[in-house]
Amino acid sequence: MEQKLTVDIEGLSGFIPTEEIMAYAARSSMHLDELSSGTGKGNDFLGWINLPRTIIPELGKIEACASRLRTLTEATVVIGIGGSYLGSRAIIEALSDSFAACAKGGHKVLFAGQNLCSDYMSELLSLLDNLNYSIIVISKSGTTTEPAVAFRLLKAHLEAAVGKESASRRIVAVTDRSRGALRKMADTEGYETFTIPDDVGGRYSVLTSVGLLPLAVAGIDIHELVNGAASMHSTTVHNHDPGTNPALIYAAARNLLYREGKKIEIMVNYTPKLHFVAEWWKQLYGESEGKEGKGIFPASVDNTSDLHSMGQYIQEGERHIFETVMSVMKSRKKILIPATPGNEDNLNFLAGKTVAFVNEAAERGTRKAHIEGGVPNIRIGIPELNEFSLGELMFMFEIACGISGYLLDVNPFDQPGVEAYKKAMFSLLGKPV
Amino acid sequence: MEQKLTVDIEGLSGFIPTEEIMAYAARSSMHLDELSSGTGKGNDFLGWINLPRTIIPELGKIEACASRLRTLTEATVVIGIGGSYLGSRAIIEALSDSFAACAKGGHKVLFAGQNLCSDYMSELLSLLDNLNYSIIVISKSGTTTEPAVAFRLLKAHLEAAVGKESASRRIVAVTDRSRGALRKMADTEGYETFTIPDDVGGRYSVLTSVGLLPLAVAGIDIHELVNGAASMHSTTVHNHDPGTNPALIYAAARNLLYREGKKIEIMVNYTPKLHFVAEWWKQLYGESEGKEGKGIFPASVDNTSDLHSMGQYIQEGERHIFETVMSVMKSRKKILIPATPGNEDNLNFLAGKTVAFVNEAAERGTRKAHIEGGVPNIRIGIPELNEFSLGELMFMFEIACGISGYLLDVNPFDQPGVEAYKKAMFSLLGKPV
Repeated sequence: MEQKLTVDIEGLSGFIPTEEIMAYAARSSMHLDELSSGTGKGNDFLGWINLPRTIIPELGKIEACASRLRTLTEATVVIGIGGSYLGSRAIIEALSDSFAACAKGGHKVLFAGQNLCSDYMSELLSLLDNLNYSIIVISKSGTTTEPAVAFRLLKAHLEAAVGKESASRRIVAVTDRSRGALRKMADTEGYETFTIPDDVGGRYSVLTSVGLLPLAVAGIDIHELVNGAASMHSTTVHNHDPGTNPALIYAAARNLLYREGKKIEIMVNYTPKLHFVAEWWKQLYGESEGKEGKGIFPASVDNTSDLHSMGQYIQEGERHIFETVMSVMKSRKKILIPATPGNEDNLNFLAGKTVAFVNEAAERGTRKAHIEGGVPNIRIGIPELNEFSLGELMFMFEIACGISGYLLDVNPFDQPGVEAYKKAMFSLLGKPV
Repeated sequence: MEQKLTVDIEGLSGFIPTEEIMAYAARSSMHLDELSSGTGKGNDFLGWINLPRTIIPELGKIEACASRLRTLTEATVVIGIGGSYLGSRAIIEALSDSFAACAKGGHKVLFAGQNLCSDYMSELLSLLDNLNYSIIVISKSGTTTEPAVAFRLLKAHLEAAVGKESASRRIVAVTDRSRGALRKMADTEGYETFTIPDDVGGRYSVLTSVGLLPLAVAGIDIHELVNGAASMHSTTVHNHDPGTNPALIYAAARNLLYREGKKIEIMVNYTPKLHFVAEWWKQLYGESEGKEGKGIFPASVDNTSDLHSMGQYIQEGERHIFETVMSVMKSRKKILIPATPGNEDNLNFLAGKTVAFVNEAAERGTRKAHIEGGVPNIRIGIPELNEFSLGELMFMFEIACGISGYLLDVNPFDQPGVEAYKKAMFSLLGKPV
């Protein structure tokens, strides 16, 4: 039995005829060719498409380095922001114990450089006072403010703790092949380094060492992740048949919905473990589509928690929304609901059922209720939360994002608007020109 | 020097004339009267307005119970969902060490019953196998599925660990005064109990024992929180002058923006500590306004992290958004950025400055860039992250939410749509009628 990721658009049938979606998906397949032949906008940033194959020779070195850091230290601080943060964080949270931070053993992975919060940084440094740790610093240029500030502070802290020489063996840089501040510093100090390819943008970099090195340090099976992505590569990249290409269906459906006035896409999960996959997805789509006054606004909810929060709005508020559900079909752990003699809470009808069974009913019930309430629903079926499935899922999202950008007639691989706040900030900070 | 919370609408001047907002705010003050005299929609749920005064006699009992649980055990599991979860979680995260979960000492507060994730529950139970813990179970009815399922499992787990009698001293119920499954169970088993007032809905309950008991267990100063709310009460409830009433200004401004087609409000922070305050705010506003096909869609970003994710969209995407920034004016911890001899990262111009200084420049620069990009900006000035300020902030949001609902001509105190998914779920689960 082969279990594969699926995209199910049954929940759109009351809003857009299925034939219309399929026909639009078929027409959209021309954009697949633009992606694979590099004839569309942003074609100098298409290296991510072949990563499931091109990254393979690097996996050994990544694993060797991860193994070295795990042996040498009890924790690793990953310094990065945006695409140098969200991919690894998403997969680590998806596959780790919910209470890993409380656990006694195991190699801890901590994050820094993803904000400029003074209290956060101070509390991290206090924690590190009592930990034997290493650092992975991820930055193409080495001058992005948040990670650069964090690296200054952490480098000084680590050198003070173990000495400059020992620190240089505990610091690994993921950066440009030859240029930039971090490359220069790494060469001078003798850090082990990994390269960020020139033709892969930050938000598409999870399958480079940017994502894979932190993942390997966290004990994630990066081969399986790449295998999943490779499997999705062969399902999507050259497949013009919408019936068997989930990326085509997803891209076409969401873009038709947008044209019908559904301006907000809510990414839905039923396990808090997928919270950061939605955050990664928000960067991927928000940054790829949100330009020239266009683009679906990406939002997310963690259910069933948020059914008791955003649920009211989704059920009965403005009808400018649609939902995409990441539906995990199998839990790892099985828990039976016990019977109670008194049945005070009236839940004995669930006794002997699993918690997952109830969660699944909540998901199916919500889907029905929201569709009836006027909210179109796309369902992504994920066989199980594991490395392979996440590889499939994230690669599907990437391909669909490229197609989506082309359907919107924008360059899905640039982010010109990100510079605006930096410029204003540097001016306030009096940065020398 | 008195430091108070402020709402600043300068960042709207390019979009709506300030006089128009002030005039609309003045007219909106009629809704203040409806709130305080109980003549508006949903007037059987207005008990929250006087909580800053009426809760005071209960604080001693809450603190005594919290102190007992802290002495008796090393961790407390708080079981609740929606309004019985988000308020306490928001304040705990805002005021706790970012790495409290990793800390060796201190009383841990854990959450359950806010999802139906089998893996989460299983991992929580494994963690609790090695912890000496107590339980606070919060539910008006005692039959809400998520907390009821969690309580069944945790009650059985705790009784197995310490015996039925000892468990009954470690379980505290926050529930209805006289009715419902949890009240009945608590009376039978002899749990200590606290009452959820009949006239306070879940999302407005943070200043009842629902919010305050978990907070006190976490070591939060609940007197100061209530003091902050009381201060905001006297600033807002009977104050018809928009010039000095931040709730009037906030409510009027956001509703005018909505009428101008700004359909999405993005709640922005510059410290990850405020992440769950935004989640609490989403429930408050989404559930109060999202009905009858109306309402602003509440979203949030954690900056500067999300400037490298949602930043592109906010800067250049569809212009249907506005931002409200929770601007904390003072950090607790001070960290200086060190100089480096080589200045490889070009950051020596920041040497000797604090991280907070850079964060503040990022905030001001972003505000400028986003306003220039066409995004109206409301700024809530918060003197410092402490109990008093959070009390002010949350009470201001509550008053403004009541006014907003009335401006939208909906009942801001009901949530009829939340039942729809439950009905569909129970049907799938075969619940006996």
